Amino acid sequence: MPRRPSYRLPKIPEMTIRRLSVYTRCLLQLEEDGVKTVSSQELADRFTLNSAQVRKDLAYFGEFGVRGIGYYVSGLKAELQRILGLDREWAVALVGFGNLGSALFHYRGFGRQGFRIAAIFDDDPAKVGREVDSTPVFPSRDLGREVKARGIQIAIVAVPAEAAQAVTDQLVAAGIRAVLNFAPARLKTPKDVRLKNVDLSIELETLSFYLAKGAR
Amino acid sequence: MPRRPSYRLPKIPEMTIRRLSVYTRCLLQLEEDGVKTVSSQELADRFTLNSAQVRKDLAYFGEFGVRGIGYYVSGLKAELQRILGLDREWAVALVGFGNLGSALFHYRGFGRQGFRIAAIFDDDPAKVGREVDSTPVFPSRDLGREVKARGIQIAIVAVPAEAAQAVTDQLVAAGIRAVLNFAPARLKTPKDVRLKNVDLSIELETLSFYLAKGAR
Repeated sequence: MPRRPSYRLPKIPEMTIRRLSVYTRCLLQLEEDGVKTVSSQELADRFTLNSAQVRKDLAYFGEFGVRGIGYYVSGLKAELQRILGLDREWAVALVGFGNLGSALFHYRGFGRQGFRIAAIFDDDPAKVGREVDSTPVFPSRDLGREVKARGIQIAIVAVPAEAAQAVTDQLVAAGIRAVLNFAPARLKTPKDVRLKNVDLSIELETLSFYLAKGAR
Repeated sequence: MPRRPSYRLPKIPEMTIRRLSVYTRCLLQLEEDGVKTVSSQELADRFTLNSAQVRKDLAYFGEFGVRGIGYYVSGLKAELQRILGLDREWAVALVGFGNLGSALFHYRGFGRQGFRIAAIFDDDPAKVGREVDSTPVFPSRDLGREVKARGIQIAIVAVPAEAAQAVTDQLVAAGIRAVLNFAPARLKTPKDVRLKNVDLSIELETLSFYLAKGAR
């Protein structure tokens, strides 16, 4: 048992959360294939997961398995979606509509998981005032107003590094609760605003690690 | 001890590899700030890491700490870069030059870590034959030839989902050794070709998890 004051819930590792997302995708796939129940071992075998890890991750949230049966695919999927907050729609602000912002806007995975980009912010006069697939593009000075009016809680930052902190400060002032940052900049947010930095070169580095290892 | 046949080296968790990338960035930062030595605890405090985790991750690769001193910042950084294969340049193919491909091409982090996009492939006649910042754009039929001629070992796939497997098959046939896939598609590669899928919605889901938790 972790040695923590008993009034705190156990801290759930972020990697567990990421894996819940992966499990949800696997369960969706099984559901599509008409599979009704699955054991942690079958899940592990089919999707190259670790069955002990699956059980440990799920144990943070409750007892989902049924002895002799395993997990009910649809039931577990719905539970995980609820835990991940995917049983509702989240209005998202996209700040920065350059190449990356545009690619993120059209990224199909977001909508599929209930993330709806409700407003785009960009200061390029050629973009402001337009609509992209019915989503309006506002100048960043309208950020506070639109974030509040549209009930936006999550923002994606896809502006150049040098603009990222200023934009984030505006988002925080507007009452945003979580920021997904793609700008290669170290951002500061208050403690109650969750910040997640996406560093795309880390993905390449896991590959070069294995290639370099093979060459050693 | 893991129960494995003794002739196999311990399998290093991918999360350890990802964290080595993070540690490398922290050490670069410390080096810039003129810090010469650092303990795992100081490293953890400054960059919100877990000091026991730092020690455990590094222990896979050797004894880096010096009793009473900690780690030599520059030395450890150089070691980690070597382990991650960042002590050399990797020629990378970028397949797909739409919004996402273009954003990835201009992503500054890649070049900084030694990943050089040596060739772009796209079948759009308006793009083929052009150069982007001195990098040539080829039609995908030239993929085999150019990958070999340019010594490319890593490919980034940024094409639409429906084109991703065909492109990957071509890359594999051309002798590529690792694929970083951004297309929302399940790809198949032979065992000796490393495949890494980037699912950008997982990043958003870790945020919605915390927001949903706060609301429960």
